[in-house]
Amino acid sequence: MHASPLYEQVANKVQGLIDCRTLRAGERLPSVRSLSREWSISITTVMQAYRTLENRGLVEARPQSGFYVLSSLRTALPEPRASQPSEVPCDVSVPDLAMRILQDTSKPDLVQFGAAVQNPDLLPTRKLHQMLGTMARRHPERGINYSMMPGSADLRTEIARRQVGAGCALAPDDIIVTNGCQEATLLALRAVTKPGDTIGVESPAFYNHLLTADALGLKVVEIPTHPREGMSIEALRYALANHRPAAVLTVSSHHNPTGATIPDERKRQLAELMSEYDVPLIEDDIFGEMNFEGDRPKAAKAFDRTGNTILCSSFSKTLAPGYRIGWIVPGKYHDTIARLKSCMNYGANALAELAIAAFLEEGGYDHHLRRLRRTLEKRVRWLRESVAEHFPEGTRISNPSGGMVLWVEMAGSSNSVCIYRRALAAGITIAPGVLFSPRGEYRNCIRLNAAYADESKEKAVARLGEIVRSEAEQTVSGTT
Amino acid sequence: MHASPLYEQVANKVQGLIDCRTLRAGERLPSVRSLSREWSISITTVMQAYRTLENRGLVEARPQSGFYVLSSLRTALPEPRASQPSEVPCDVSVPDLAMRILQDTSKPDLVQFGAAVQNPDLLPTRKLHQMLGTMARRHPERGINYSMMPGSADLRTEIARRQVGAGCALAPDDIIVTNGCQEATLLALRAVTKPGDTIGVESPAFYNHLLTADALGLKVVEIPTHPREGMSIEALRYALANHRPAAVLTVSSHHNPTGATIPDERKRQLAELMSEYDVPLIEDDIFGEMNFEGDRPKAAKAFDRTGNTILCSSFSKTLAPGYRIGWIVPGKYHDTIARLKSCMNYGANALAELAIAAFLEEGGYDHHLRRLRRTLEKRVRWLRESVAEHFPEGTRISNPSGGMVLWVEMAGSSNSVCIYRRALAAGITIAPGVLFSPRGEYRNCIRLNAAYADESKEKAVARLGEIVRSEAEQTVSGTT
Repeated sequence: MHASPLYEQVANKVQGLIDCRTLRAGERLPSVRSLSREWSISITTVMQAYRTLENRGLVEARPQSGFYVLSSLRTALPEPRASQPSEVPCDVSVPDLAMRILQDTSKPDLVQFGAAVQNPDLLPTRKLHQMLGTMARRHPERGINYSMMPGSADLRTEIARRQVGAGCALAPDDIIVTNGCQEATLLALRAVTKPGDTIGVESPAFYNHLLTADALGLKVVEIPTHPREGMSIEALRYALANHRPAAVLTVSSHHNPTGATIPDERKRQLAELMSEYDVPLIEDDIFGEMNFEGDRPKAAKAFDRTGNTILCSSFSKTLAPGYRIGWIVPGKYHDTIARLKSCMNYGANALAELAIAAFLEEGGYDHHLRRLRRTLEKRVRWLRESVAEHFPEGTRISNPSGGMVLWVEMAGSSNSVCIYRRALAAGITIAPGVLFSPRGEYRNCIRLNAAYADESKEKAVARLGEIVRSEAEQTVSGTT
Repeated sequence: MHASPLYEQVANKVQGLIDCRTLRAGERLPSVRSLSREWSISITTVMQAYRTLENRGLVEARPQSGFYVLSSLRTALPEPRASQPSEVPCDVSVPDLAMRILQDTSKPDLVQFGAAVQNPDLLPTRKLHQMLGTMARRHPERGINYSMMPGSADLRTEIARRQVGAGCALAPDDIIVTNGCQEATLLALRAVTKPGDTIGVESPAFYNHLLTADALGLKVVEIPTHPREGMSIEALRYALANHRPAAVLTVSSHHNPTGATIPDERKRQLAELMSEYDVPLIEDDIFGEMNFEGDRPKAAKAFDRTGNTILCSSFSKTLAPGYRIGWIVPGKYHDTIARLKSCMNYGANALAELAIAAFLEEGGYDHHLRRLRRTLEKRVRWLRESVAEHFPEGTRISNPSGGMVLWVEMAGSSNSVCIYRRALAAGITIAPGVLFSPRGEYRNCIRLNAAYADESKEKAVARLGEIVRSEAEQTVSGTT
């Protein structure tokens, strides 16, 4: 561990004053000059600290005036409870709503709190499209030809380089390019399971993982999950010993929907446990680079010594969902997955591969990522506060350290499918909790995508709050 | 039926003279002026007739001299025999060579007679890439966003329009865009089969179809196939009655590898038979638009009255393999296939969809297609003649009416895998026959891709002929 830089220490100290309400919402922070004098630190350091607090969504700069504490309610709402799903494996039964929610992403009139798709305003669209054009002129033939599995060597080299940040030492040949992360997890599941098998998933779990399991004729056993630290390793050990799953599927960092990140040390335990049981771990790391602070979390793959972790990811959240470029690191299942991919669709779009490789090499991906993280952090924080303001008492909400979704647990026995329907009628799309359970649990939860959540959505959150409140009342009056 | 135009009647008459050797190889055709006078037809008509013969690869124009009969050996080699595979369903065992052959398409130093990939020189690369750039500027946001299943409405409208030529009356909503035709057939197979099921395939069959069946745990039953008229409907009826396959997979027009096209009337019988047995027909129509003369063949889907034909195709042979744009018409399996596609990879590359839609609408696709057909016809004819010249006696070769591949049956018991290896060492890639059988049959056959076959490949064909000859001799001496 490195000591954090001075400005971050200063920011933490000031945040402490906000947390304990020494500095209250609406109050002005000490001026930069005065804090610099009082704490004997440079003006630059104070400015950096205040900017950090601004990025954390705790204060705002008002022109010609100074920094002010925002009406922070971050400690006001508790986080959702740890999940306690049934220990018994079951078939998947997820309503067809999931497909509707994905398709509604193309409707610009809806407030997009539903599917976890990235907001194109936050993506380097113009630059990527320009690079695509440049690649088409520079490599016309490569662009028109198949880019056969395993995909562009340039792109795989860039991906291998970036995975150093996740703690993974990969060669380009360890990587196969896919049409997005979903295809990667499908390939992984097809490689290591057969119909009738059981796989382990987090509870709650990403609905498309559940639907994929269903499509492959798999049962799932749900693993209890902590709202911040993710899958319980102890519960996983129990499931491994008792249900012998054919694979375990995890969104190990900035989990969808809970936002939980398995701490690095527990990721090591996870990888070791899976190797001990010789059960493949399928790791969906699609949100791994979208941490709000510090270094990006490690991947469990970083601790894999036996090759039985299959790492899946893509650029669909950080660069270009429409380009359909993801990848898989198949570990010891390389040959099987290569064969499956080869007779699935040969490869990915050739120019998209080249454009993303060029962007990673020279397009300022890190710079873009820093900005994306800051914006998402702000939006996540804003949406949390807005929910706290508008939702009824008893609401719980996740406090993710990265990613872009919030998991909201509503008080009492609200029916999130009814809320979904009424919200849709009001022009707002959300993801009801039942989608995230193979057996229709999480009826009282909803997932919100924060990527579109800025001040302009205040009314939408307020309307959502009204709907939640009125549903809760109906439920109460219905049960009396 | 329309009567063929006058120039075509004239061309056929002259071709008759060539076929019966009244006009021999190397001889000059009657001059345009003299034939015009003798047959009392206009000079324009004679010119059109001679150009038609040139397109058919029968004559060549020599500047300042006239038209000469090419050393046509088109009647010299017989076509391969009708196949007579085992009636017993079996598991698929195809050597890993298939993947190697696909990957070797990226090696520009090899003579590309192997995988059936299109030659990029024959594709409208520059224009398509330009349209891609235009679309990126015109619709930046659509290009960066997911194009969720079922895919771009513009593209599906254009596809529906073009399918009129295949005899299919489709609405855009009948179509789902896929990442190529292979993905479409995979989706179809996943939708209508489960592991352990048997599917019917033509014998020989496209190797990636066999590999896909294998990957899905399916057995296959091979249906005898005529070298020109394709799958035997009578044998299919027997297989349906005796083996109750879960589906039948056909490349119904310009079959890969045989080049056979099931005649329209037999396609009607095929569709009716499948409906009678209520077994889904999966129709891979990827070569359907690549006919050499007349109207494109109908699809069996045109005769489907019950929705149990699933039509699969793509633009990978005619426009841009690297764009990865295909489609599926799922018929009555729509909901299942939509769900499978949605949790496979959401959709295809968004800009590629837009660019191909624009090309179909205003890029001169028909004009391009006419030129592509003419070139492929010439190359197929050239390669047939070159094989006739260089391969040992007893060789048989297909005479396809479209597509781009030739199926060569060698005399005696040549081992095509040895030929493949020696050819590769000599810088030539081919596809050995064993790949096209689930049980290693067709050892004495090879498939040649004609898309790269022009005069510059004369030496390569000669070298291949030498290898085939020497393998045949080794086999003979080995058996004495």
